[in-house]
Amino acid sequence: MNPRSAGERHLTEDELLGAIRKVLSGPGPLVVIGVGDDAAVVEATPGEAVLTADILVEGVHFDRTLTSPRDLGLKAIVANLSDIAAMGASPRHALVSLVLPLDVEASWVMELFGGMLNAGEEYATSLVGGDLSTGPVVVVSVAVTGQVARGKAVPRSGARPGQRLVVTGTLGGSAGGLALARAPVSKVGEALASEWGRRLLDAHFRPQARVGEGQTLAQAGATAMMDVSDGLALDLSRLCAESTVGARLELAAVPVASELRELATVLGIDPLEVALSGGEDYELLAALEPGSVEEAARLIDERFGLRLTDVGEITDGPVMTAVDDAGNERVLEPRGWDHFAR
Amino acid sequence: MNPRSAGERHLTEDELLGAIRKVLSGPGPLVVIGVGDDAAVVEATPGEAVLTADILVEGVHFDRTLTSPRDLGLKAIVANLSDIAAMGASPRHALVSLVLPLDVEASWVMELFGGMLNAGEEYATSLVGGDLSTGPVVVVSVAVTGQVARGKAVPRSGARPGQRLVVTGTLGGSAGGLALARAPVSKVGEALASEWGRRLLDAHFRPQARVGEGQTLAQAGATAMMDVSDGLALDLSRLCAESTVGARLELAAVPVASELRELATVLGIDPLEVALSGGEDYELLAALEPGSVEEAARLIDERFGLRLTDVGEITDGPVMTAVDDAGNERVLEPRGWDHFAR
Repeated sequence: MNPRSAGERHLTEDELLGAIRKVLSGPGPLVVIGVGDDAAVVEATPGEAVLTADILVEGVHFDRTLTSPRDLGLKAIVANLSDIAAMGASPRHALVSLVLPLDVEASWVMELFGGMLNAGEEYATSLVGGDLSTGPVVVVSVAVTGQVARGKAVPRSGARPGQRLVVTGTLGGSAGGLALARAPVSKVGEALASEWGRRLLDAHFRPQARVGEGQTLAQAGATAMMDVSDGLALDLSRLCAESTVGARLELAAVPVASELRELATVLGIDPLEVALSGGEDYELLAALEPGSVEEAARLIDERFGLRLTDVGEITDGPVMTAVDDAGNERVLEPRGWDHFAR
Repeated sequence: MNPRSAGERHLTEDELLGAIRKVLSGPGPLVVIGVGDDAAVVEATPGEAVLTADILVEGVHFDRTLTSPRDLGLKAIVANLSDIAAMGASPRHALVSLVLPLDVEASWVMELFGGMLNAGEEYATSLVGGDLSTGPVVVVSVAVTGQVARGKAVPRSGARPGQRLVVTGTLGGSAGGLALARAPVSKVGEALASEWGRRLLDAHFRPQARVGEGQTLAQAGATAMMDVSDGLALDLSRLCAESTVGARLELAAVPVASELRELATVLGIDPLEVALSGGEDYELLAALEPGSVEEAARLIDERFGLRLTDVGEITDGPVMTAVDDAGNERVLEPRGWDHFAR
């Protein structure tokens, strides 16, 4: 009960939990026992259950001085929902474990949960439990469960030579937004005020999970799928490794976020390079039979107003190559976001 | 590929993931898609699904210089399984998200997973996925799913006045083990070499989850249950708050770990105080009808060789009191482990 600043004071764990419980949903249609017990109890999943976890660490995945707690909360949920989407599944429940330094104020934590709840509402995912601890930096550790019809989950391992590689939306926007947010205001002041600058910041700080798109791609016959969270070149290499295939990427077809071309004039970056190796786009990469691409693209445009782009083909492999406009083919290195690279 | 020391080198994320995948179980009877995809896919849960998460942070929950990675891995899983046990449920699958400082060696991480796998084998829980990140301290964030027959989960909220309060095993051993591990060797050298000292260290570093005991208590008619992870006084106050009842704790009945009396002669601690407010015992606290206690105790002794102790009664409340040998009754303060206390 130590007064601290501007009406803020530190909370005990039980007080913080009490405040969090107020903003979280109690028992509902799918939730038998919600937040506040030793564990949550939820209705059984029809079909198969899908399980994923993602951890965001201050100083590694985000900078508390650049991101709002609301955006951080949303992104922590979206990063997980993107993994559920990549299986062609539907999300159901989320568990949230937080590490909070003692300097974090209760209002910051409430905003963080606000962002998580917004994401939960948007994607029909209820927050049913989790844990709290202190620690030196903020850590947001989320686990999400989902469901998928029996045998219908789309793995990374199902790509076959001759199939087409497709990707949803555009790439590089998130990395561009991060570069913009980190650049000195003296250099990017105009860009920050522009419409394209705002879109880049949105791509980085307020990403979307392609849940409906993933289900549509699964229905359209995708045999392999994953989300592009660590950059197209690195993630494609993972899909190829799991499927024991190679790929030929058509560089001219890569859907580079158009805002990156604007950013290039300010920051001198290579838009294609950013699109290939920038992380956190949360778009979906899938392998489809050549005859299914057009119909899948039509459905995704019709249902979600989103572009689906054919970016190349699956080959016998194991090499992954990139072909430029002039037809020059070179080996594509799996560069991208590696948390352990130094 | 930087050589470092004694055959150790830093790994890339994909290399570390590859090594982890080798020690984790692939698809099995309940696992359709295991570690290595965007998400794991598992067989649907019969009955209801139980979800819980627990996070262990270096410097808060453990000291890397005191605990072995194998013990830490085991404890991270056990802490979650204890929550599953407290619902009367059976564990099924675990997701593990790790934060690892760059100075952690690959062999340490493999040992950590070894401990988690041992716990998984002991309690029939498969590790099916997770995430990795760097960060300033080690964080082990685990989420576990379980199953329970429809409507059979035991919440914290079901205690009724007139019921008896029972607790499994003994209390305070974990806090005693931690005190022993932290004390100067010059003071506790003999204790560390003793049989009772070893048992205290085991209680802290290698705890057990009372999974079978929780199911037995549920079958014996427990209407409220929780695990004692933050100390009996604090956890009992939580059970009382959720059930809108009070409790009268009989201090002479509290099953103080006998090793604490030995430790008291060395460190000058109050064994009862440690048993009431020491954390991480992972025993179960439950409310039973008076007529069910004897049979429940018999079953738990028979099946698990473990004591079940009647420690008091549920009252109308809302006050929680403690009665000593002489019959003096005082208000019991909910002291215990609060991560945010300072």
